[in-house]
Amino acid sequence: MPSEPDPDARRPRLTPAVADTRRAVRESLGDLPAGSLALVALSGGPDSLALAAAAGFEAPRLGLRVGAMIVDHGLQPDSGAVAERAALSARALGLDPIQVERVRVEQFGGATPVGGDEHIRATGGAGGPEGAAREARYAALEVAAVEHNAAAVLLGHSLDDQAETVLLGLARGSGTLSIAGMAAVAGLYRRPLLGLRRAVLAQACADQGLEPWTDPHNSDERFARVRVRRSILPLLERDLDAGIVEALARTAAIAREDAEALDHMVDEIAEEVVELAEGGCAVPVAWLAANPAALRHRLIRLVARAEFGVALSRVQTLEVARLVTDWHGQGPVHLPSIRVERAAGLIVFALAPDRS
Amino acid sequence: MPSEPDPDARRPRLTPAVADTRRAVRESLGDLPAGSLALVALSGGPDSLALAAAAGFEAPRLGLRVGAMIVDHGLQPDSGAVAERAALSARALGLDPIQVERVRVEQFGGATPVGGDEHIRATGGAGGPEGAAREARYAALEVAAVEHNAAAVLLGHSLDDQAETVLLGLARGSGTLSIAGMAAVAGLYRRPLLGLRRAVLAQACADQGLEPWTDPHNSDERFARVRVRRSILPLLERDLDAGIVEALARTAAIAREDAEALDHMVDEIAEEVVELAEGGCAVPVAWLAANPAALRHRLIRLVARAEFGVALSRVQTLEVARLVTDWHGQGPVHLPSIRVERAAGLIVFALAPDRS
Repeated sequence: MPSEPDPDARRPRLTPAVADTRRAVRESLGDLPAGSLALVALSGGPDSLALAAAAGFEAPRLGLRVGAMIVDHGLQPDSGAVAERAALSARALGLDPIQVERVRVEQFGGATPVGGDEHIRATGGAGGPEGAAREARYAALEVAAVEHNAAAVLLGHSLDDQAETVLLGLARGSGTLSIAGMAAVAGLYRRPLLGLRRAVLAQACADQGLEPWTDPHNSDERFARVRVRRSILPLLERDLDAGIVEALARTAAIAREDAEALDHMVDEIAEEVVELAEGGCAVPVAWLAANPAALRHRLIRLVARAEFGVALSRVQTLEVARLVTDWHGQGPVHLPSIRVERAAGLIVFALAPDRS
Repeated sequence: MPSEPDPDARRPRLTPAVADTRRAVRESLGDLPAGSLALVALSGGPDSLALAAAAGFEAPRLGLRVGAMIVDHGLQPDSGAVAERAALSARALGLDPIQVERVRVEQFGGATPVGGDEHIRATGGAGGPEGAAREARYAALEVAAVEHNAAAVLLGHSLDDQAETVLLGLARGSGTLSIAGMAAVAGLYRRPLLGLRRAVLAQACADQGLEPWTDPHNSDERFARVRVRRSILPLLERDLDAGIVEALARTAAIAREDAEALDHMVDEIAEEVVELAEGGCAVPVAWLAANPAALRHRLIRLVARAEFGVALSRVQTLEVARLVTDWHGQGPVHLPSIRVERAAGLIVFALAPDRS
């Protein structure tokens, strides 16, 4: 028996992947005030394109407006054409306003708006061209958010991006916050797709007939993140645990909570226990001795950072802590720019005398 | 010109590797009371053999006694001979007393002493034969520690073991404590070599003319730990960061501090805020709402574990938390054995009615 013609055949199908992206956007934007604007940071790649499609669909149903901000880094010869194509996609998805911003990325320095057609000049420090492009992108997004009075800037990071970020943070090994990954909400920024696998986002594009751009940088193995994505995570999935991506994201969420709670406690404690002292400030030995290492070490790092602008390493932090935990009358601890010593029941932080 | 004969040629040389192991043991045991006994858990492998050698050298200088406890799991046909050889090594290194304990490892169950020649029967639950052997080993060590009135039991875990433990914990993704690795001190147990690379321990054995046993299980790729050691960590060192082993250990140390501080806070808080309620207990919504997620989630997990013996997953914990953070009059949350609902300003945990 021949089947009836399907009346829905020409309408885009609500597949599981499309439904997942829409639900994620709905949950992320549900608290924005009616009538406000969310700007999608759009590269034209599969993640941000899936985000733009879901946001374009959901925003009117939530009483919101949604626009797109496309940053052209000018790092590749066809970057202008890529940006134009992304703008066309955004228009077809119903986003408005759509802004394309051209930035200039240089080596070494900061990120600043420039005149003429190029509105932001970004220059990479330790992060190299990758870091410079990121700096330029965020600077341009912030300018656009202010210009358009946007209530939120939406980023297309996926669960896979989160797992990669945790692994890269592990390689630094600089504390709970370094494995806390990316926040789902941080100021203006929101990452609605942070709980979805990258494969789901690619599928959502395919299901909606969207043709994402493939960034050639995503296969350049000189970037640590590309090596993590292409060889390290697949090996971990195969040889360690098939659920490693989800496990890394779960670890990030818990680590972020822990770091936020402890950092907040120490901020409040510092107000109460840090005293002014000659040439710097001081903390009572009794407080440091009575509190757990997590708070003791954080307070030592906080004083060095807030009072002297110095980021202490783990080893340096432990050296200062030993003035409390392993006290046998030892002399001052000499750190870059800071001298720390124990005197009269206080740990005294002072500017190092040899500093010019 | 022919060189003079070296008068030190026949004496064991104090190489950097030997000095490192001795310093580590000195620092770990410095606080033990004079005359007390430390027992080395000795397998005869390079790590525990390097530990036995360093402890045998340092103990008399610290006014301590040092013995060895050798556990024969009987898992391999020649295990008795391996144990005997380890006992001979320990004797040559000056350790006394030396005890060899034969245990029986079975699948499924717990670890209990048995009569006759075999003093501990161990049976693996979820951990399989690997877990059963570990259970049996620790049970035998505890019995021996009590018998000999030992002040400490020394374990030969290295920095590499710590990094492997962190990666295995990451694959579970069950929180800060799962990546906290092994503690340098935990009750009777001490791990003096936790800061030294495995290669240093092997070198220390070679430098002292010691011939360690090679455990065939260490090359059996059915074990996740063996895969981590042989393929995953070397790839991470090559493609992610050459310092990844140290970074993982640093992350473990910081995560352990954070988890200990927060767990301790929540234990104290629970004493104050958890109330008895009909069929279970309750926590004020106001307390849960006013405190950071790290404490809120820990308190929810603590109540489920301490009052009902249930270990909540991350997803289940968040579901309960939504009765506070996303309250819109929803009904009770049904968990294994527990029903949680919001009523009269309280989150009430009760035994699920359908439990037999």
